[in-house]
Amino acid sequence: MQSFAQLAAQFNQFFERDHFPSFPGSLYDPNRHFLQIGGKRIRPVLCLMGNELFSSIHPSTWNAATAIELFHNFTLIHDDIMDKAPLRRGVQTVHEKYGNNTALLAGDVMLINAYAYLNKVPASSLPAILSLFNKTAIEICEGQQLDMDFENQLEVSLVAYLQMIEKKTSVLLAAALMIGALLGGASERNQQLLYSFGLKLGLAFQVQDDYLDAFGDPAIFGKLVGGDILADKKTFLLIHALDTADASARERLLYWQKRPGGGKVAEVLSIYKSCQVDAWALQLKQQFLDEAMADLDQIAVVSSRKQSLQSLADYLLQRQI
Amino acid sequence: MQSFAQLAAQFNQFFERDHFPSFPGSLYDPNRHFLQIGGKRIRPVLCLMGNELFSSIHPSTWNAATAIELFHNFTLIHDDIMDKAPLRRGVQTVHEKYGNNTALLAGDVMLINAYAYLNKVPASSLPAILSLFNKTAIEICEGQQLDMDFENQLEVSLVAYLQMIEKKTSVLLAAALMIGALLGGASERNQQLLYSFGLKLGLAFQVQDDYLDAFGDPAIFGKLVGGDILADKKTFLLIHALDTADASARERLLYWQKRPGGGKVAEVLSIYKSCQVDAWALQLKQQFLDEAMADLDQIAVVSSRKQSLQSLADYLLQRQI
Repeated sequence: MQSFAQLAAQFNQFFERDHFPSFPGSLYDPNRHFLQIGGKRIRPVLCLMGNELFSSIHPSTWNAATAIELFHNFTLIHDDIMDKAPLRRGVQTVHEKYGNNTALLAGDVMLINAYAYLNKVPASSLPAILSLFNKTAIEICEGQQLDMDFENQLEVSLVAYLQMIEKKTSVLLAAALMIGALLGGASERNQQLLYSFGLKLGLAFQVQDDYLDAFGDPAIFGKLVGGDILADKKTFLLIHALDTADASARERLLYWQKRPGGGKVAEVLSIYKSCQVDAWALQLKQQFLDEAMADLDQIAVVSSRKQSLQSLADYLLQRQI
Repeated sequence: MQSFAQLAAQFNQFFERDHFPSFPGSLYDPNRHFLQIGGKRIRPVLCLMGNELFSSIHPSTWNAATAIELFHNFTLIHDDIMDKAPLRRGVQTVHEKYGNNTALLAGDVMLINAYAYLNKVPASSLPAILSLFNKTAIEICEGQQLDMDFENQLEVSLVAYLQMIEKKTSVLLAAALMIGALLGGASERNQQLLYSFGLKLGLAFQVQDDYLDAFGDPAIFGKLVGGDILADKKTFLLIHALDTADASARERLLYWQKRPGGGKVAEVLSIYKSCQVDAWALQLKQQFLDEAMADLDQIAVVSSRKQSLQSLADYLLQRQI
């Protein structure tokens, strides 16, 4: 059983290869540019861990993990176009550097390339893996659309927000784990438990992400506090505050939507605190984490094999950065 | 052996089903809108014909044909964004009706849905079909990028243009036929011959398309003559004219690139005629058609089974509309 850091290092070595031909450079240079921006590679490592939970890593799991990472990068390229984001990790996004049309096409070919890597898994596992991959990919598109829809809604219910977050981010973590488990020969029930673990972990992570954006220590968090508030993003915090604030606080929260202003972050934060949104969020995160851990507990393998996933969850969910 | 019209009618019936869930409508209504614009359904019917050339139609070929048609529609949605096209067949394009972001995402989910249909072929054929589908999809992205690149080049060689056309349009016709052949149990060699037939047919069709845009009878052709000239599109005609015109005619052709003007179409057409580009194009089309037919001839099945494909080729390549 290897740790996240060990598997990430090995994956990065595997992933370093050039995934694209040289011609036409006008199409593939943008892809190369984007991949060298790098990333934490959480999803492919989850795929490897999902495999290693049940057996030593099957050679084709590296390809499945690559498919998942390429897919993730496809979503980032297209999301950046939609969000008009000029930078990612401080580097120019594809559309910013090469134009919208090429970015659109570079994303398309990244997605198709993901399917090409997926086709390297054993033929006997291909239908099941392709089915899960397609279902997940479709949900991610739906999640992104719902996220865009929410931008134009003044209020969003907690249930609707949870559904969006689950589709937009959690299902890929869950599917990465489950594809690994499938290649590791896990039983159907163990696969499902691991999938559920991934879903809950993803939700806990998003609650934390929303929390840190408002209440994180900027010195540790590494970015300005209140970015979501300034961008009028729907978050767990805003939704719960609107659900629980008194009439005048609700009115102030709604007033600040789509309105710029120097005092915006401070006032919204103060309303959040008056509604005890911070404590609520920490408790919600803990609840999802507990549910995730209960799923992991139930998986029928010796508990020593679960150590890496437990450590990863602890690491991800206690992060201050 | 059924005719194009018979198979197209059956395919349309099969394809009429709703391919998308109702929620979120903000994502799937655009897909439904686009599919109801309709189309000639040439590619899925080629897939069915490729199957029927070798055996009665395998039930899963309808799904493979659907995958191909959905893939084709994905490329159209994204191409329309890139081309900023407001209309297709007189109907609003997806980005025009729903905005660029939703169109991007609707295209993505259309592509993924194509893969979902592809996963309905028998597991034993899936790796081969998925491999061909991925290769084809990648080439189509490359072809689209090359086409965009050519817009910014004053001159393009005939070899480069042929490569672009092959990737952008021919490979999908070829792959549709070959996937059908594969599902029909054709030998490797017969599959390859049919693929080559499709490639050549596609090239012949594109030569004809370029020809008709300049020399077609507008009363029959149904659209204004000279659209490609006005849009400064690289075509077989322009490339050959630049290759063969004398210095002063070449200079005039280059002068008109990227320049509007009332006399543009008339003068370019007159240069084309002085270079006998029209006769050259008809001969080139015939050459590709002959090569296609030679491939079809060599396929080892009784010639009566080839009748439908021959008729289709005749129909497509003598069209005045």
